[in-house]
Amino acid sequence: MKIIQTEDMEAIALGGAAYGTGGGGDPYLGKLLAQNVMRSKGAVHLIEAATLADDALVFAVAGVGAPTVLIEKMASLEQVLSVIDALQTFLGRRATALVSAEAGGLNSTIPFCAASALGLPLVDGDMMGRAFPEIQMSTCTLDGILASPLAMTDEKGNAVIVNGVNNEITERFVRSLTADMGGHSFAALYSMTGAQAKKSLVLGSISKLMETGQAIFQARARHEDPVAAMARVSGGRVMYKGKVVDVERVTGGGFSRGHADISGLDEFSGDNLSLLFQNEFLLARRGKKVLATTPDLIVVLDLESGEPITGELLRYGLRVAVLGIPCVSQWRSDAGLKLVGPRYFGYDEDYVPVELRA
Amino acid sequence: MKIIQTEDMEAIALGGAAYGTGGGGDPYLGKLLAQNVMRSKGAVHLIEAATLADDALVFAVAGVGAPTVLIEKMASLEQVLSVIDALQTFLGRRATALVSAEAGGLNSTIPFCAASALGLPLVDGDMMGRAFPEIQMSTCTLDGILASPLAMTDEKGNAVIVNGVNNEITERFVRSLTADMGGHSFAALYSMTGAQAKKSLVLGSISKLMETGQAIFQARARHEDPVAAMARVSGGRVMYKGKVVDVERVTGGGFSRGHADISGLDEFSGDNLSLLFQNEFLLARRGKKVLATTPDLIVVLDLESGEPITGELLRYGLRVAVLGIPCVSQWRSDAGLKLVGPRYFGYDEDYVPVELRA
Repeated sequence: MKIIQTEDMEAIALGGAAYGTGGGGDPYLGKLLAQNVMRSKGAVHLIEAATLADDALVFAVAGVGAPTVLIEKMASLEQVLSVIDALQTFLGRRATALVSAEAGGLNSTIPFCAASALGLPLVDGDMMGRAFPEIQMSTCTLDGILASPLAMTDEKGNAVIVNGVNNEITERFVRSLTADMGGHSFAALYSMTGAQAKKSLVLGSISKLMETGQAIFQARARHEDPVAAMARVSGGRVMYKGKVVDVERVTGGGFSRGHADISGLDEFSGDNLSLLFQNEFLLARRGKKVLATTPDLIVVLDLESGEPITGELLRYGLRVAVLGIPCVSQWRSDAGLKLVGPRYFGYDEDYVPVELRA
Repeated sequence: MKIIQTEDMEAIALGGAAYGTGGGGDPYLGKLLAQNVMRSKGAVHLIEAATLADDALVFAVAGVGAPTVLIEKMASLEQVLSVIDALQTFLGRRATALVSAEAGGLNSTIPFCAASALGLPLVDGDMMGRAFPEIQMSTCTLDGILASPLAMTDEKGNAVIVNGVNNEITERFVRSLTADMGGHSFAALYSMTGAQAKKSLVLGSISKLMETGQAIFQARARHEDPVAAMARVSGGRVMYKGKVVDVERVTGGGFSRGHADISGLDEFSGDNLSLLFQNEFLLARRGKKVLATTPDLIVVLDLESGEPITGELLRYGLRVAVLGIPCVSQWRSDAGLKLVGPRYFGYDEDYVPVELRA
């Protein structure tokens, strides 16, 4: 078990921004919310799934929809707690522990608010090992665990319990309702037993975010290369360094789709790198050669500071490093690739593990 | 109390089609479903609300969305029962009696299936005194009764519990979810106490449908005028008789919008009658003179048979009578007109009671 203090949230949010792979929402707001709560309610106990009783009740709490709307709506702790309450009332049972749906983006920090406020432990793990945009894109789906019963609430006090027969239809219902709720909602979902959590979660992924953030902070403090530090801690490699020379982007419906062209610096001069994104960076191609695709992680960092750059923030002139990081093994199965592989997102490319493309 | 037998459903469905005022879905399918159930499970006890205990639990069961889709989906008794079960499970309590949401259209017959199958009485009343297209258009809304918690289900086994803070937002959620469910769903909604039912329902409206249907059947059997019979029983008047000479209609999203022009016969020769509909007939204008608007009922009957004609079935050459029937008094308040008056539907007309326009 680790005790996560208010100041530890800085590293977790930084790691979460990197593992957001360009999308997933900025963990900054979740970090601020969590730190506010933790100052009065105390630290969060980050526990190993192995310590859960087999009959424990674990579920995730997450924001759904456009993070920019969330900020306009002034998301509050009460709303996060109300959705947990709605699910617990429906289940007739209280959670033993909470878990993050995503290790990356906003939803890597949101559960800390609730864990601190309710005095509940947070499991060191998640359901993606990164961020993905849809509810069914979860390692739990691969093991037949339903996201339903799923509770959702908005800031006006509306609450809905969704009982979808599969996670794809639950995603569709939640997406429609979120639009009706003004573009952002909170959900409590994927309730599971301790036994299921041990088997089906991506384990240790919140610690990984913290280590990643700490490595970047340390490198900065020591005037070392934060990009190299991130590559080392994440087990990834620097695929490209260059200057952004073109960005085309269409934003709408909570999605930011487009591509960016990056012109190589130093040893990367020659063919440009093209980055394709749909919120998350999903495909990196240099000339005609694909360097990485989803579900492997494509992370863009500011070349000097190591600060993660989202698809929305990419702009002409930025000097960036592009990292390729192997995804968790669950996604590399046929079922995993069907759920989150390049073809699901409309790219006519076979998946080849990023470490084999080098 | 009245005992409603299988054969009584014919008159109720005919009356329901007339009170559907051109929309609301054809009660025929609901009648067939109800008759099938009643043959094996027995008659339905149609009770007066006054006989309910003040703490009784009453709610409505209704189809939502496009009735044509319902027919394609082969709506089954199981689905009607599953939505009742979902609401009862959520409430932790079983219904004392069921009630119809609408006295008109498909939803005037659907509750009979459930009442027979579950051996529950059906309250002789409804929430509109006619058919209307949206959930908040209910006399219960006027008394502050929430449609939520509302259960909805589809034929695939998906179930959702909606807890909207007002009936307008509940309508919006249910409409989106119904689209996601393929265009039609069933809902259990407007749970209320016996005391609330006595105060806020439109009382006696199911008996009224049966009397209306019986009057049309009797007139046919006696070779009398079924149109005159319907006008007499309903307290309305024949506003126009003529031949349909033009119909313009746009169908989509479960809605059929448009207008029909009718050329007068006999004493009605002269100015044509123009009928505006959005599923239901909402405004009748002769020349420049408005003869009736929502929430008063505009009913179109075949001139010879007295068979009700829906907006979808209106076509060139049909010889029809157009009746204007006063709506229930609840709709004539300011709050009622805000909910279902001509301006809500986009017509720039003040409401004047139909009996004052003659």
